[in-house]
Amino acid sequence: MLIIPKEKIQEVFSMRDAIESNKQAFRIYSNGESSVPLRTNIDISKYAGQSLFMPAYVESLNAIGIKIVSVFPQNNSKNLPVCPAEMLLMDGETGIIKAIIDGTYLTQIRTGAASGVATEVLSNKNSKIGALIGTGGQAFHQLEAMLEARPNLDEVRIFSRNQEKVSSFINSATPILSRFKAKLLGVTTSDDAIKDADIITLITTSKIPVINGDLVKKGAHINGVGSYTEEMHEIDEKTLIKASKIYVDSLSATLEEAGDLITPLKKNIISKNNITGEIGSLLLSNISGRKHDDEITVFKTVGMAVMDIVAAHNIYNNSIK
Amino acid sequence: MLIIPKEKIQEVFSMRDAIESNKQAFRIYSNGESSVPLRTNIDISKYAGQSLFMPAYVESLNAIGIKIVSVFPQNNSKNLPVCPAEMLLMDGETGIIKAIIDGTYLTQIRTGAASGVATEVLSNKNSKIGALIGTGGQAFHQLEAMLEARPNLDEVRIFSRNQEKVSSFINSATPILSRFKAKLLGVTTSDDAIKDADIITLITTSKIPVINGDLVKKGAHINGVGSYTEEMHEIDEKTLIKASKIYVDSLSATLEEAGDLITPLKKNIISKNNITGEIGSLLLSNISGRKHDDEITVFKTVGMAVMDIVAAHNIYNNSIK
Repeated sequence: MLIIPKEKIQEVFSMRDAIESNKQAFRIYSNGESSVPLRTNIDISKYAGQSLFMPAYVESLNAIGIKIVSVFPQNNSKNLPVCPAEMLLMDGETGIIKAIIDGTYLTQIRTGAASGVATEVLSNKNSKIGALIGTGGQAFHQLEAMLEARPNLDEVRIFSRNQEKVSSFINSATPILSRFKAKLLGVTTSDDAIKDADIITLITTSKIPVINGDLVKKGAHINGVGSYTEEMHEIDEKTLIKASKIYVDSLSATLEEAGDLITPLKKNIISKNNITGEIGSLLLSNISGRKHDDEITVFKTVGMAVMDIVAAHNIYNNSIK
Repeated sequence: MLIIPKEKIQEVFSMRDAIESNKQAFRIYSNGESSVPLRTNIDISKYAGQSLFMPAYVESLNAIGIKIVSVFPQNNSKNLPVCPAEMLLMDGETGIIKAIIDGTYLTQIRTGAASGVATEVLSNKNSKIGALIGTGGQAFHQLEAMLEARPNLDEVRIFSRNQEKVSSFINSATPILSRFKAKLLGVTTSDDAIKDADIITLITTSKIPVINGDLVKKGAHINGVGSYTEEMHEIDEKTLIKASKIYVDSLSATLEEAGDLITPLKKNIISKNNITGEIGSLLLSNISGRKHDDEITVFKTVGMAVMDIVAAHNIYNNSIK
């Protein structure tokens, strides 16, 4: 049994690897080649926590796995991770556990790589300006994925409600991302971040929209990554109305969990026909992608167990090479 | 994160520890102090296998855990364990994984200890002769538990349909159990094993009864451990009719999974009133136990996730002492 901590993942599984891994996962998912039972939740009311158990199986990879994610907000005051997570990978031929992989880091990189895939296949190739709204724990990999997908970006404007967090985020991200030419620019309003942006990534858990769709320019691509419950809405309705195409990671999961889509659907601001389909279907060429440079495209992701197990499979294989 | 292999469990968690751990688990379970969601099964039809995911939570111990057990019959020809298993223990206060424990060995010792508890609280104290029917992978710990519960036994008669397995079982068990005075005696029929036995443990997966109830003597105690599906029947109906008291580990689980009880209940050979109750209720003094030396008592166990998580909790605590 191999223990694969964060440092080992960093060594063997680059953002490029993660993007290719997610493409594989999206295709597998949209092609119906994965088996993902309902997740099991245990409420730990004594400590206001919750533990989630998410098994999955991909026959074509002989990969069985389970991600265990716990959410313990009180960990914050104990200087412990609020969402400790581990991913177990089992051999689909024998049932034997092959590896235990740092699930927190795996989640960060595969969530970044989700918008990385969408940016690569949906944003305009000549994109110059990026915008990142949100500077929390997942933000760094969102930024890295944007740059990996569009290395020709000149600048990425970064906004968070907390200006101190913007500075410290830029200070820590800049040296790590020095292989890219883009300048990281802190801005003081969301409007400043998005008004000229070709690519916009939202990574907040906000219950009210964090962008003004009136300012989204023609041809922009927007990744909605942060919200994952019915109450959360980071994409505003005007952006959805302006969008030519809306893609999702999983139709069933986003229509169940993504407030950004559920609420406007309920209010008849958009209809299900406005949702173009799954990004996996696009990768399989079963649905079409961007048709011209002026189209606004949106990608909404809530994450899928298949992304975890395919990433775990690839991390393990790279680790034993 | 602590990795606890079989050798470490053997070092820190004796059969006596396992019996006390199961008493604790049985009390917790029958007192409604555990939270055990439905297990998740994934079928791996490509390799005729199955993986079972069994999470559980015990608030009073701050213990969250999941046992992952796979059943891959084809592993046999690959010289790999047919039922690889691992137990993960998480801190109920933080959600952080504390340990990964060899689940195959944990299952063996806690399953042995289940009949050990029943033997200790139900069999006659002056028992002299034991009988063990079955010599498979779980048999050794059943024998050890019987001797730990009743160290004054003079002999244990051992039967399996395969006489070679009886000899090799006795040869390997004898030196390990030399601290007990009981002589291990191979016999060639089930009748020879049970006819004078004070304590009888059945550890087979037989679909037809492996004992003849006519020969079960007054005052005997019987542990039915091996069968765990509706099709399996190792206890014969005559034994159940003769029994003064029938105990189970879990009423809901045995009435769902134990063919030994389900079939005679369906045939109206016994009624639910004949099932005295859960051994945890007996340990809590909510129901009564053996009343006199002539009573025949039966204990039927199919195993419970609570036994695993309490054992994991105790193994972990003993490991870090």
